[in-house]
Amino acid sequence: MLSEFSLIERFFARRAAGQPSVAADGSLGIGDDCALLAPRAGEMLAISTDMLVEGRHFFADVDPEALGHKALAVNLSDLAAMGAQPQAFTLAFSLPKADEAWLAAFSEGLFALAERHGCALIGGDTTGGPLNLCITVFGSVPPQAALRRDAAQAGDDIWVSGTLGDARAGLGIQRGEWQADAADAASFRRALERPEPRIALGLALRGVARAALDVSDGLAGDLKHILDRSKLRATVDADAVPRSAALRKLPLDTQRRCTLAGGDDYELCFTAPPAARVAVENAGHKAGVPVTRIGTISALQSAADRPAIDWRDAAGAPLTLTLQGFDHFHAD
Amino acid sequence: MLSEFSLIERFFARRAAGQPSVAADGSLGIGDDCALLAPRAGEMLAISTDMLVEGRHFFADVDPEALGHKALAVNLSDLAAMGAQPQAFTLAFSLPKADEAWLAAFSEGLFALAERHGCALIGGDTTGGPLNLCITVFGSVPPQAALRRDAAQAGDDIWVSGTLGDARAGLGIQRGEWQADAADAASFRRALERPEPRIALGLALRGVARAALDVSDGLAGDLKHILDRSKLRATVDADAVPRSAALRKLPLDTQRRCTLAGGDDYELCFTAPPAARVAVENAGHKAGVPVTRIGTISALQSAADRPAIDWRDAAGAPLTLTLQGFDHFHAD
Repeated sequence: MLSEFSLIERFFARRAAGQPSVAADGSLGIGDDCALLAPRAGEMLAISTDMLVEGRHFFADVDPEALGHKALAVNLSDLAAMGAQPQAFTLAFSLPKADEAWLAAFSEGLFALAERHGCALIGGDTTGGPLNLCITVFGSVPPQAALRRDAAQAGDDIWVSGTLGDARAGLGIQRGEWQADAADAASFRRALERPEPRIALGLALRGVARAALDVSDGLAGDLKHILDRSKLRATVDADAVPRSAALRKLPLDTQRRCTLAGGDDYELCFTAPPAARVAVENAGHKAGVPVTRIGTISALQSAADRPAIDWRDAAGAPLTLTLQGFDHFHAD
Repeated sequence: MLSEFSLIERFFARRAAGQPSVAADGSLGIGDDCALLAPRAGEMLAISTDMLVEGRHFFADVDPEALGHKALAVNLSDLAAMGAQPQAFTLAFSLPKADEAWLAAFSEGLFALAERHGCALIGGDTTGGPLNLCITVFGSVPPQAALRRDAAQAGDDIWVSGTLGDARAGLGIQRGEWQADAADAASFRRALERPEPRIALGLALRGVARAALDVSDGLAGDLKHILDRSKLRATVDADAVPRSAALRKLPLDTQRRCTLAGGDDYELCFTAPPAARVAVENAGHKAGVPVTRIGTISALQSAADRPAIDWRDAAGAPLTLTLQGFDHFHAD
């Protein structure tokens, strides 16, 4: 296994933080039993972990550079949804074999994104086995500014960043569920393979938004998490949910399926009081990401009422969505 | 996948920390995009991650309760080797199917150890796929008291805790490499399946030991990490390395093979100045773990000299160990 060790050293350890000596802030990276890390003064560490498995979260023939990007991006997206500033990550993975070209491309995609966000590799583990990637990511956030799922209030606006549904449209093309022209197909594929974590927006929304999360499993299911946690209802204009020009060329029910239950979008869905509309727009401008108001949070109607989403179409008429029929790449 | 979700909720989320509301110290557990965690005031978080893969780190027919114990134990052992106090962990795993009896036993083994060390589950991820367990563990340690690999000094004594080699002896029995009577075989198997992380000893060695690590890949290879990091040599009495009465019944070369290159011991190997011998013994007493002095650290002999271990037998004669021929369970 010497060749595997030297490949890992070559592609990972040399670009990792704190190696071999301790950094100015006392942090310690790869090479000891543990890494040492502290949040910024007065802040806490926001921590999230995600495991990606071949055949489930990505296909065996995925571009390894894109996989390196996405494996970290989905974790950074959780930091964005908390309003946290990325600091560091650990990477554990099992690989069937040490393929130099694959590792070179994978690490390139990984570190390009990591370095863009100042997020240092501080530890990890590598082993033989079926391809599996487990990243744990660390950010710093003042606890009172953290964008939590249970912080929505009745009367809040509901917002989403960017556009939803392109990743699901790309998956549908790979699966042969629908077609698109080459340019649109490439754009959908890019959305699926190279999501951009909304770190800058999450930071800009500190003190502006109330509840937030990232849309990883589809808007319908994810918004429901905010409602469950906050014990509230929502009314959402299904046709106001922002979508790309490419997605608008597909049939309306496909558009709705992709935008409302598509998954893998990694945009932020958040709530904010109506008085904060200008501040939310400003946060979007500052972060360079469009933000769109899609609905309203309301109180439960009675003691027997349960958190739920009331969908409306563009004309304001109630819309019955059989989410049973919806699916997304993350089946679990 | 509803049944899988409900099983996970039943076996994991209910025993996790901070759910659903924030704890008194501001920490936040399972249920949001991120957990929130801070080290103790003035300390840093010690962080380690390990991935365990079926067929490589454990056999398919392993007792799931023992696997739950071991998956966390090997991570806690890294905290022990840093002198850190356990605080929390995340668990990501992929499972081929949601087997209720298996998950019940696995979680029982996991939480029994976690609760014994006050280590709370604060986040995780679950997916379908070949069995793979990835745990990331968090402890708190004053940075100046952390037991680092690069802190050994010439003249230091070399110590190990407990006994070494029983886990490798147990693996040898499973592999049919050698035999033992039923009681000894059970004792070896217990060492292999249920290692005890030396948390109390790591804490007691703060300010007493200099360098430390946990013996996971075999003493010869692991001690070499301290030498490489500290740029020093070592002389070790191979026959002074502590071993169990059961292991002493096997042939001497098997004893040496198991104690020096066995792996999976999870005892601590550490260095301390000779003036600290009483303090080291006291730390062992306090932690309830025997500690044994096995050798001495020395300076490199010239600019061309490289970190290495000089082995001696019980009579002080040089011993040539062909470590090439040694192996252990962790082939990577």
